[in-house]
Amino acid sequence: MADQTGANMMSICLLLVCYFVTTSSSSKPPNIILLYADDLGYGDLPSYGHPITEAPILEGMAANGLRFLDFYSANPVCTPARASIMTGRHSLRTGVWPGVFYSGDYGGLPLEEITIAEVLKTQDYSTAHIGKWHLGVGENYKYMSPNQGFDYYYGIPYTHDDCPCLKCFYPDRPCTYTCNMNTVACPLFRNLDIIEQPTDFTTLSARYSNEARRWIRGQAQANQTFFLYYAFHQPHNPMFSGEQFTNSSKRGMFGDNVLEMDWMVGQVLEEVREQGLEEDTFIFFTSDNGPCMSRPFDGMGSAGLLKCGKGTTYEGGQRVPAIAYWPGRIQPGVTDELSSALDLLPTFTNLAGASLPADVIIDGVDMADILFNHGKSLTDTFLFYPAFTYPDIGAYAIRYKNYKAHFLTSGNPNSGDEWNPDASCRRDSPQTPFKPALVYDLDIDPQEMYVLDKNKYYDVYAKLYEIKVQNEATMTWRPSEINKPFNISLAPCCNPGCQPVPQCCICPHQLTGVVTTPVMTTQMVTEEITEMETVRIQEEIDSRPGNA
Amino acid sequence: MADQTGANMMSICLLLVCYFVTTSSSSKPPNIILLYADDLGYGDLPSYGHPITEAPILEGMAANGLRFLDFYSANPVCTPARASIMTGRHSLRTGVWPGVFYSGDYGGLPLEEITIAEVLKTQDYSTAHIGKWHLGVGENYKYMSPNQGFDYYYGIPYTHDDCPCLKCFYPDRPCTYTCNMNTVACPLFRNLDIIEQPTDFTTLSARYSNEARRWIRGQAQANQTFFLYYAFHQPHNPMFSGEQFTNSSKRGMFGDNVLEMDWMVGQVLEEVREQGLEEDTFIFFTSDNGPCMSRPFDGMGSAGLLKCGKGTTYEGGQRVPAIAYWPGRIQPGVTDELSSALDLLPTFTNLAGASLPADVIIDGVDMADILFNHGKSLTDTFLFYPAFTYPDIGAYAIRYKNYKAHFLTSGNPNSGDEWNPDASCRRDSPQTPFKPALVYDLDIDPQEMYVLDKNKYYDVYAKLYEIKVQNEATMTWRPSEINKPFNISLAPCCNPGCQPVPQCCICPHQLTGVVTTPVMTTQMVTEEITEMETVRIQEEIDSRPGNA
Repeated sequence: MADQTGANMMSICLLLVCYFVTTSSSSKPPNIILLYADDLGYGDLPSYGHPITEAPILEGMAANGLRFLDFYSANPVCTPARASIMTGRHSLRTGVWPGVFYSGDYGGLPLEEITIAEVLKTQDYSTAHIGKWHLGVGENYKYMSPNQGFDYYYGIPYTHDDCPCLKCFYPDRPCTYTCNMNTVACPLFRNLDIIEQPTDFTTLSARYSNEARRWIRGQAQANQTFFLYYAFHQPHNPMFSGEQFTNSSKRGMFGDNVLEMDWMVGQVLEEVREQGLEEDTFIFFTSDNGPCMSRPFDGMGSAGLLKCGKGTTYEGGQRVPAIAYWPGRIQPGVTDELSSALDLLPTFTNLAGASLPADVIIDGVDMADILFNHGKSLTDTFLFYPAFTYPDIGAYAIRYKNYKAHFLTSGNPNSGDEWNPDASCRRDSPQTPFKPALVYDLDIDPQEMYVLDKNKYYDVYAKLYEIKVQNEATMTWRPSEINKPFNISLAPCCNPGCQPVPQCCICPHQLTGVVTTPVMTTQMVTEEITEMETVRIQEEIDSRPGNA
Repeated sequence: MADQTGANMMSICLLLVCYFVTTSSSSKPPNIILLYADDLGYGDLPSYGHPITEAPILEGMAANGLRFLDFYSANPVCTPARASIMTGRHSLRTGVWPGVFYSGDYGGLPLEEITIAEVLKTQDYSTAHIGKWHLGVGENYKYMSPNQGFDYYYGIPYTHDDCPCLKCFYPDRPCTYTCNMNTVACPLFRNLDIIEQPTDFTTLSARYSNEARRWIRGQAQANQTFFLYYAFHQPHNPMFSGEQFTNSSKRGMFGDNVLEMDWMVGQVLEEVREQGLEEDTFIFFTSDNGPCMSRPFDGMGSAGLLKCGKGTTYEGGQRVPAIAYWPGRIQPGVTDELSSALDLLPTFTNLAGASLPADVIIDGVDMADILFNHGKSLTDTFLFYPAFTYPDIGAYAIRYKNYKAHFLTSGNPNSGDEWNPDASCRRDSPQTPFKPALVYDLDIDPQEMYVLDKNKYYDVYAKLYEIKVQNEATMTWRPSEINKPFNISLAPCCNPGCQPVPQCCICPHQLTGVVTTPVMTTQMVTEEITEMETVRIQEEIDSRPGNA
């Protein structure tokens, strides 16, 4: 599907090319490591103001790197946010709407979309993906990361709440909160082989770390430039952690889970240092969307001072922590320049000396000047699409400079926060259009509390409406991949063709790879298969036009 | 008035004495500087997570000092918070309840109460107070700081919203938001002499800075150990700033105001350094209470992730920024040890090698182990009294370890936040008792969202109720000073005995001291004297039993 290229986009692309020529052509491309948390909120890290969370490694990265104060995820929900970070494009351009992929879905991120990994492959990068994917599985695993530009994969290809909840904390504490109980046990893949099903979460982080270190070491020994996309399951529901971190934090399950992720980040940094690659490696840490606030007590994330969380287009839904780290190249500090996950593909492209994908609109811009000169953003505009938007609705909100207009708002339709004292964040807060839009000045009111007077700020309102109209006139929506049918037989199963699915999809004996802990029994899985989150997910799948 | 001393208090006092003997007896007492912001919220500084505020000097202090994550003001409103920081005692012990002092009040902090300054005078400290007092003026200025242990005073002795609002921003931008228009123009004092009325706020910060530097320099030259209590008017309503900082920040009026305060802090640090005293001077920065959130747009403060703000006993009302700075003695870092403004008097007493006031209960504990060893707090309990509590009500909330029980809550009765999406923070949220109390776990839920199950946490509930009962059985309330009558003739007037008050209390010609800017005219003051905040304040004063 060809995109329409507008005049504004062309001028941005030209600017990018110029920038690359002047800044990066003479230096050896760096290794690139993208560390991606799941549901970590703007206020969840100490450097972003949380009084309880411990994350010593990330704090060190923040103190010695560039910390972003105004960085957005491209979407307030996992799947579309991930489609965007991989492609530099809003998810509606790639068909990744509305909602998220489930394990038995036919759809996925279309293979003709060009991922960061595919861009970097053009410059002979070795590429690996460890962890969560969530951009589709499909028939014969056609949408999984080994088919999207990654040479190596080790991980669970979707969210671990899309499997029955089993033991999550060492030694055998069960998971808390609901999971989709009506699907197969979580499969752990190496490349396109299932090596463990169900996955033992109490040892998973250690195994991910071993894989990450081993892979980095291999690249270093081969003197091979590399790209590692390391997508943590933390701190998405349900929380989990192994022996080292269970009951280790003051912040309960959430704190244990974040501490374990922090340790995983540290394992990567340690390997990079041990291989003498610290000054040759650009590391970027961020989160896929705002905090899930629908889990009470020690499962809840925090957006800090920002309004609402995951699933909403308020600031709490999409403004996320982001840290760039490259000793010797990036000066320590903070930046409040407007930037987003859409910018990573153009930025990595520039760093690698690659060319941007041809004939497609890239929504992001290169961040090089911000990173290396504490300079200015190349964009002053950002569009906020929720996971459940549609072509006749378009962007819920638009940011222009320090102003943000909400044309529509809603609570998180997927998993709202029934306890939130702010009613507009709750699941039962319906999609509500505003005419005129609600316009806020985020510099003086990052909490989105005080609507600007439309008469006093007439020019601001007019500019925001102009962007909205222009965007809707030129935006191209690829037909939905998520609305394609769901079939439980597509869910990854280590006993292909067995019956009954999902219960038969467990493998008591290890298939391949090094699995040192006992796996779970059929009985354990069966006991957990009850009606819980399943009902909601089934309703969501049933409502798709593709299933009608 | 003698306090009843319970067994628990005795054991704490003994502990303090032991500590002092072992840690401080051999070293020369340091100079002490207490920097005190007005209405700066937990989330208002960059190091506490605010994305917009700029405060480079305070950030430097935080990075090179000890930043407190769990430090409480002793009360959520100015006057009682200040009574407590000066005495180490809950304000109800000192008669400083209910509410705040106004400029024409007969009452004040009783002279027999022993202030930090009076404690330090016993060790031959030279003492000065610059800035706001707000602990009463009284007949013949009897309650002002020169009569409370301070050798030198330069400042406005109460809040600058208790004067007509005049120009606040350079060169002549008027003040925003309401003031008490029915009283005399703001008087600037040197010791007990009015040197300017009305005070020009666009040059005030520069003059405070000159005074602070000059006074520190004088002490240094005389080789005199000193205590400076520097109580800023920032960032209390109405915002103001001079030529250097007007329109200097991204956060509007609030940001300009904070940047100017930050510069004032920097002026003090610079003088300390220039005098070679950095390693001999203990500097502590904090705020008197949480943010005022009733001012929309760029006047609003932020409590970050915490619930509500000023005037409430939720976390946002009393948990405040706090930074301890002493190069060479205090190791940089953060601490989440429970501590409060009540602890400053015992801590300063220890540092100075002085004795605690005899025969009075001190509610605070020495923080030395936290400061110098990154050690533990000597207390695990904190009592939350709002400004408008009464003997038959007592503490609204109690903290024990990481648990906090709310026995009563209310929005801010004084100036609620009508726009706040959290209804419980608003002015119209009435005093509401809870049986059982609302108990939260602040470690996993600093946002006070999820009430703990009283059956599951029976022991925690029982302990909190035990503390409440014990406290109410032993607490002694001094008769209210604030309920004493109000008489406009007591308000400081540079033309004593003139008529009509308040309009006649302006002095077009400078009286004493160096005033380099033109002062305002009678006409300017008169024009501003209208009915605004006056109505509310008059109602509050009229409701006092002392005026009945």
